[in-house]
Amino acid sequence: MPAVAQTVQEHGSSKVKIGIAAYTFRKFDADSTLKMYQMAGVNYMSVKDFHLPLNSTKEEMELFKQKCAAYNVIPYGLGPIYMKTKEEVDKTFDYVVRFGGNLLIGVPNYELLPYMEQKVKETGIRVAIHTHGPDVPTYPDAKDAYDRIKDMDARIGICIDLGHTVRLGADRNNATDLLQYKDRIFDIHIKDVTQPSKAGTTCEAGRGVIDFKPILKAIKEMEYNGVISLEFEKDPDYPFFGVLESIGYLRGALDVIFR
Amino acid sequence: MPAVAQTVQEHGSSKVKIGIAAYTFRKFDADSTLKMYQMAGVNYMSVKDFHLPLNSTKEEMELFKQKCAAYNVIPYGLGPIYMKTKEEVDKTFDYVVRFGGNLLIGVPNYELLPYMEQKVKETGIRVAIHTHGPDVPTYPDAKDAYDRIKDMDARIGICIDLGHTVRLGADRNNATDLLQYKDRIFDIHIKDVTQPSKAGTTCEAGRGVIDFKPILKAIKEMEYNGVISLEFEKDPDYPFFGVLESIGYLRGALDVIFR
Repeated sequence: MPAVAQTVQEHGSSKVKIGIAAYTFRKFDADSTLKMYQMAGVNYMSVKDFHLPLNSTKEEMELFKQKCAAYNVIPYGLGPIYMKTKEEVDKTFDYVVRFGGNLLIGVPNYELLPYMEQKVKETGIRVAIHTHGPDVPTYPDAKDAYDRIKDMDARIGICIDLGHTVRLGADRNNATDLLQYKDRIFDIHIKDVTQPSKAGTTCEAGRGVIDFKPILKAIKEMEYNGVISLEFEKDPDYPFFGVLESIGYLRGALDVIFR
Repeated sequence: MPAVAQTVQEHGSSKVKIGIAAYTFRKFDADSTLKMYQMAGVNYMSVKDFHLPLNSTKEEMELFKQKCAAYNVIPYGLGPIYMKTKEEVDKTFDYVVRFGGNLLIGVPNYELLPYMEQKVKETGIRVAIHTHGPDVPTYPDAKDAYDRIKDMDARIGICIDLGHTVRLGADRNNATDLLQYKDRIFDIHIKDVTQPSKAGTTCEAGRGVIDFKPILKAIKEMEYNGVISLEFEKDPDYPFFGVLESIGYLRGALDVIFR
């Protein structure tokens, strides 16, 4: 009988970092949230202020990081965090510096981009600007964000939210966006949605309107090195079922595409 | 804005019938079990005697079928049922006839195959012989079953259990078996396992040793028209999480392969 080590397959999905945006667990405390990552076999978290408020002390942050380590979860990014004033930019960067983080998923008002760029140069923190489809006035899609940052410091990029992009209309092509803006795609939020319009809401991956095949092929083609984080907005009081089904779905699709 | 109907993607997985072998829910009553199918968005059940005992009356069977219909679940097959005597063959076929079923997932003792064939001719019921890897002495794999039935009535076929096959050893190739015996593959049980040996146990699809890509490609190539049923043996007291993750996994992989 061959040794197990020889026969365990190399999963295609293991070539990609699968994460969960902690917004998914906004109704749960940090411990319950981390337990859920463990159950789903997911090792990457983009941290939300629900679990680590912006005014957290360094000691509170250390405790949070210890909890993450206990569950084998890497808090790879902080956000999304909205920044509407210079003071909020300052506060946000202080937060990430205090945490020792190197990726901020941020949404600065357009007019604050130059000030934010200055903070990036000062701190060395990378910023992924979160796109939000039709819901908020800033950064509807990757093109909007890219056109505003393309001449800025190379540490300013995009967190493309694939579900929100589709909510701008069925003609939107995430695969094209991923390839076109690949040099600035620092983070990816993934979710399925019920309709390709503002009325569309998150649903279990594979049950909505998004065709993930070309998207995941584009992620392979662009040689993306970041995390693909499920952001499951549905069922905030009991997200477990939908999260596990969706993580399973992504893992299955990735296993086929990346092998 | 385009109409939703135009933009809803045709899911690759919708070209395959995804089911769950009800053995998965052996600790639950029929109503709880059906609720779980609904949650997973699964419409095909292979019925186990836990939920519909072999001595069920026609009235009890009608009630069970009504419950299935209420949850949009098709009880496409009955079994696995072991048959160790002629009397048990009779009892089993009576059960399927009484139910109005046309697919029995059966495990007759080898010496009962000719008698079972006679019952097939009498009743018109198709039999899929369940393969069980290293656990029981009969029908370890598709080859064993095929060699014994290949000259029998064409309504006698195989329910290939992909997980159990891998538990016979890492050299076993389910994809080859599926293609080689495709004319007699009537049903498929799918699961991932922790090791390619008798010690291997069911785990969430995608977390074990099975590479599903060539298997699902073979299912596509063979133009399989039956059901692929997840049989999740793990966590009998709380199978929900593992089932949803596994169904998600299969749907994700199928969406990529069948589009």
